[in-house]
Amino acid sequence: MRESAEELVAALTARIAAIDKDRLMEARSHLDGLTKPLGSLGRLEQIAAQMFALRDGAACTGMKKAVYVFAADHGIAAEGVSAYPSEVTRQMVENFLAGGAAINVLARLNGATVHVVDVGVNADLSGHANLLHHKVRRGSRNMLREAAMSEPEVTVALAAGATLADTAAAAGVELLAIGEMGIGNTTAASAITAGLAGLPVAVVTGRGTGLSDAAYTHKQAVIAAVLERHLLVGEASAASRPLELLRCVGGLEIAAMTGMMLAAAAHRIPLVIDGFISTAAAAVACALAPNARDYMFAGHRSQEPGHRILLERLALRPILDLDLRLGEGTGAVLAMPVIEAAVRLYNEMATFSAAGVSEATR
Amino acid sequence: MRESAEELVAALTARIAAIDKDRLMEARSHLDGLTKPLGSLGRLEQIAAQMFALRDGAACTGMKKAVYVFAADHGIAAEGVSAYPSEVTRQMVENFLAGGAAINVLARLNGATVHVVDVGVNADLSGHANLLHHKVRRGSRNMLREAAMSEPEVTVALAAGATLADTAAAAGVELLAIGEMGIGNTTAASAITAGLAGLPVAVVTGRGTGLSDAAYTHKQAVIAAVLERHLLVGEASAASRPLELLRCVGGLEIAAMTGMMLAAAAHRIPLVIDGFISTAAAAVACALAPNARDYMFAGHRSQEPGHRILLERLALRPILDLDLRLGEGTGAVLAMPVIEAAVRLYNEMATFSAAGVSEATR
Repeated sequence: MRESAEELVAALTARIAAIDKDRLMEARSHLDGLTKPLGSLGRLEQIAAQMFALRDGAACTGMKKAVYVFAADHGIAAEGVSAYPSEVTRQMVENFLAGGAAINVLARLNGATVHVVDVGVNADLSGHANLLHHKVRRGSRNMLREAAMSEPEVTVALAAGATLADTAAAAGVELLAIGEMGIGNTTAASAITAGLAGLPVAVVTGRGTGLSDAAYTHKQAVIAAVLERHLLVGEASAASRPLELLRCVGGLEIAAMTGMMLAAAAHRIPLVIDGFISTAAAAVACALAPNARDYMFAGHRSQEPGHRILLERLALRPILDLDLRLGEGTGAVLAMPVIEAAVRLYNEMATFSAAGVSEATR
Repeated sequence: MRESAEELVAALTARIAAIDKDRLMEARSHLDGLTKPLGSLGRLEQIAAQMFALRDGAACTGMKKAVYVFAADHGIAAEGVSAYPSEVTRQMVENFLAGGAAINVLARLNGATVHVVDVGVNADLSGHANLLHHKVRRGSRNMLREAAMSEPEVTVALAAGATLADTAAAAGVELLAIGEMGIGNTTAASAITAGLAGLPVAVVTGRGTGLSDAAYTHKQAVIAAVLERHLLVGEASAASRPLELLRCVGGLEIAAMTGMMLAAAAHRIPLVIDGFISTAAAAVACALAPNARDYMFAGHRSQEPGHRILLERLALRPILDLDLRLGEGTGAVLAMPVIEAAVRLYNEMATFSAAGVSEATR
């Protein structure tokens, strides 16, 4: 008998340990002995301590990095919620595979391996050898008419993400970035955010890749109708059922990202979340397993209003604030050098005693 | 007859061209053709356009990077304005040369060469082969009693920095970070900031490397007395005489940084300024030669209140905001991967037409 989504999530959640506060103290004590004024490395010290504690004190040396880009189409795109036609999902997947997209450039620069995952692109991509094939369906269902995913579909998508985390763990990946591509997916992320936060659609919805005023108003109306359709209006109705929220108004790539985030946390692999859609997956993951948050870094703060709301809700302070709104994992990979810097400073700086530097006197 | 500081600065200023607005337009047009929603790379697009324009369209390919750390002692340290004893300047220079300081770790990670410059350390460092020897004097004079530098001293310090920019240009450096080390130098930077901005001492002065309440109050009183001593109170008296302000209340490393920034701009080398002290040098450089600002990127925003004031005055938006307050060029070198990312995206991303990706429809 196949596992249900609840069973899969419960099994992952049970494996996610809370961060050890003693490890944080141990890390802070080490940082205070390095040749710099106390606390003068600011957030880098917090990041270094978190990296030390979430790995339960295991040294982080090679810093093998990878970014997973989950691609899927969205049935809701038929309602005209995006500035781009649906075929751009497939076109961009091909661009990723050819190495010409922003994420490819940034990953090359920062030494991260790019893995492109087809969880639900509405095209036959079986001929691409470098693509990770986990297609559940050719796009999610139109959530204005029915749930975006059936029970088995959301389960398979979650499991696909979890399996990829297992593979990354086996390959020794020490830092993960998780991003996406999917025309229509800011609509799904907005619906998830409205559901989780119990906030009005207008507050959580942005212009995505660049909608006109009329299209933006239409997008908001569609999202409101979607939430109404699935009886997900108001905090109590949706926030307490994150898995059902994900199934009804999420997307295949969002479900797969959620699965990967949960499994990465179970493996104690730190992960960098990206923009609005990636953070919506993270918010679902944290609603399912609050301990997962300790393994997450927010790569950046995007221009999407819903992204800011989710980051505040998760109490994740973004590392970068560069007005990006591209997705693909770009903001997460851009933040990787900062996390790597924190770890390298922790590992490589001289101590006051070893370097013969005097400490503060007043 | 030796050149005066005014003559030196005038010669450099004459060589600093304003950025060409047509080049900015040309860059933006290129960026709009890349496979991403219009403007979705946010500040990276602005940085890429500025890099293109400030080099007057010359391609930036290898991105050879260097950080110069200017070290000097401060006579004012005798007044008890720092949490650390003066010998820490020498000790940290030796730590830089041994590769154990934060700047060494970050420069190794980000591929920048570290150059340590002795402009005025109060110690005999002549035995260090890897140190760049430009010592003007063993520390600046105590600015509470006399000007921090004599006319010839400030001129030699400015010229030393300018010479280093010439060397960097000849070596093909394409991105410069400029940082410092000098016990007592937040006092000099605060005095410069108060003088340039015409603001009260209490507003521009912070706790430096971590002063107690009593020592912090004392530091403010010392800075107020210094400004009074040199008749630099109020905007009109000091802001219009930046070179005199630098000479009276600056420091040898601050003067050398100012010289390097002016000469780097003359060579069209983009430079990343660091924390409060580096930014004080940048503010002096921009007061002397407003066009120099076009060649500057603010690496980060530190915790020092004066730093925030100077960045706003210069209208430079910091790339990172990580609560650093270490100096050494650390915030500047940490920001280098973001600038490099912007340039690489500009150079390497596929265009819509080449990648066969559809453009926005609505």
